Amino acid sequence: MDTIELLNQHRSQRTFSAKPINNELLSQLITTAQHAASSIFLQAYSFISITDPVLRQQIAAVTTMPFVQQNGHLLIVVADQHRNATLAQQQGLDPQLLSAADRFLASVEDATLATQNLVTAAESRGLGTVFLGSALNDAAKVIELLHLPKLTMPLFGLLIGYPDGENELKPRLPEAAVHFTNGYQEPTTYTAALTDYQQTLQQYYQARSHNARHADFDQVIRGALTSKHPRRELLTILHQQGFLNE
Amino acid sequence: MDTIELLNQHRSQRTFSAKPINNELLSQLITTAQHAASSIFLQAYSFISITDPVLRQQIAAVTTMPFVQQNGHLLIVVADQHRNATLAQQQGLDPQLLSAADRFLASVEDATLATQNLVTAAESRGLGTVFLGSALNDAAKVIELLHLPKLTMPLFGLLIGYPDGENELKPRLPEAAVHFTNGYQEPTTYTAALTDYQQTLQQYYQARSHNARHADFDQVIRGALTSKHPRRELLTILHQQGFLNE
Repeated sequence: MDTIELLNQHRSQRTFSAKPINNELLSQLITTAQHAASSIFLQAYSFISITDPVLRQQIAAVTTMPFVQQNGHLLIVVADQHRNATLAQQQGLDPQLLSAADRFLASVEDATLATQNLVTAAESRGLGTVFLGSALNDAAKVIELLHLPKLTMPLFGLLIGYPDGENELKPRLPEAAVHFTNGYQEPTTYTAALTDYQQTLQQYYQARSHNARHADFDQVIRGALTSKHPRRELLTILHQQGFLNE
Repeated sequence: MDTIELLNQHRSQRTFSAKPINNELLSQLITTAQHAASSIFLQAYSFISITDPVLRQQIAAVTTMPFVQQNGHLLIVVADQHRNATLAQQQGLDPQLLSAADRFLASVEDATLATQNLVTAAESRGLGTVFLGSALNDAAKVIELLHLPKLTMPLFGLLIGYPDGENELKPRLPEAAVHFTNGYQEPTTYTAALTDYQQTLQQYYQARSHNARHADFDQVIRGALTSKHPRRELLTILHQQGFLNE
């Protein structure tokens, strides 16, 4: 399949067959992830494969998502300046600058670029994936379970596996809402496009085969603001992990 | 070309021919970017195309990179919860939670996932790209130039264009350094793999056709810690933009 066509067909896959991903394929996916760009080449991320069934259940409990207990390979994606700080200290350098906001942002971006490559590579091999932001519902617990040292931060989980069932494609915001020229555009400048989108998204939510409901983009935002897991502790945890401590 | 092969061939492209990207192709790349996953579907990012030559020179000056003044289409990638906050207010909701660390991280991740899709789509059409972290050398200036409102933050620039010349592929860290099982691994557990990597990277730096020099991964880290642009003001700017203000 053409690469753009493949990317345009992306949807979250939450249910997987029991067929495991073999180690060779997993390794190939990690290699491809690593080929993404990286800020000043610090490659400031790590992937942690969860293969221990007890650990898997503990992380699934953090996510509160029943499907995380089921099939699929579970990765936890980590922003990681700890490796670079350790290597800095080994050559007698003060790693302090790696804890600044700039390097924290870069590590989040490095990790995320690599993960998107991994997702694309997986989908090109017929696998499906779902991001688990819910791995941060109890970030302190994940840090403890995975022995994550200072200057690391878990960002999200990723489940990868052979799809069982298929979801409909979810319509994205109109280009007018996310692509501007020479400066920022306020939503008031593209209200017509947004109104159309509300209708398109409403039709999607009503017609989809799983969890059909009455909703639109307003509802998506309302959901975010009334989340059961607002994760207000994350800034404190970032500080505890040594980040953003200028 | 096979998608994994394409991703594994990625390298930064800093010099472009004068051939412009037509608007239809650019629009196609943005659409594909938008198909990336997004945290709780908030799609919390925006792309800003820089087509005004004066603005382009002002941003090039921030980056201090002469090639930014030359060919290629320039995008600034923005973490954006402002759109969602505005839509929240329109339905009478308090958008405060969108300013928390959790939603800031999600917006950085949304923006970065979308950008990696854009890069992959571009490369599949024979285009090259380079990330410009240097757009944050003076983030306050970029915010002013692009009229970026509260709850937005520029993350990086991206240059896209038809390649003029080609770079060698840069060797990545060994998998042992970035992929662990069931818990974090300290660098002391994979020193042999790191030593090999230092040699591999040294050979790459010595043999490459542009800017060949004596360097290895220790040198990469040393460079990060002695940067001329440590960007220590970024945390303050993030607060000013309304983020991380729990």
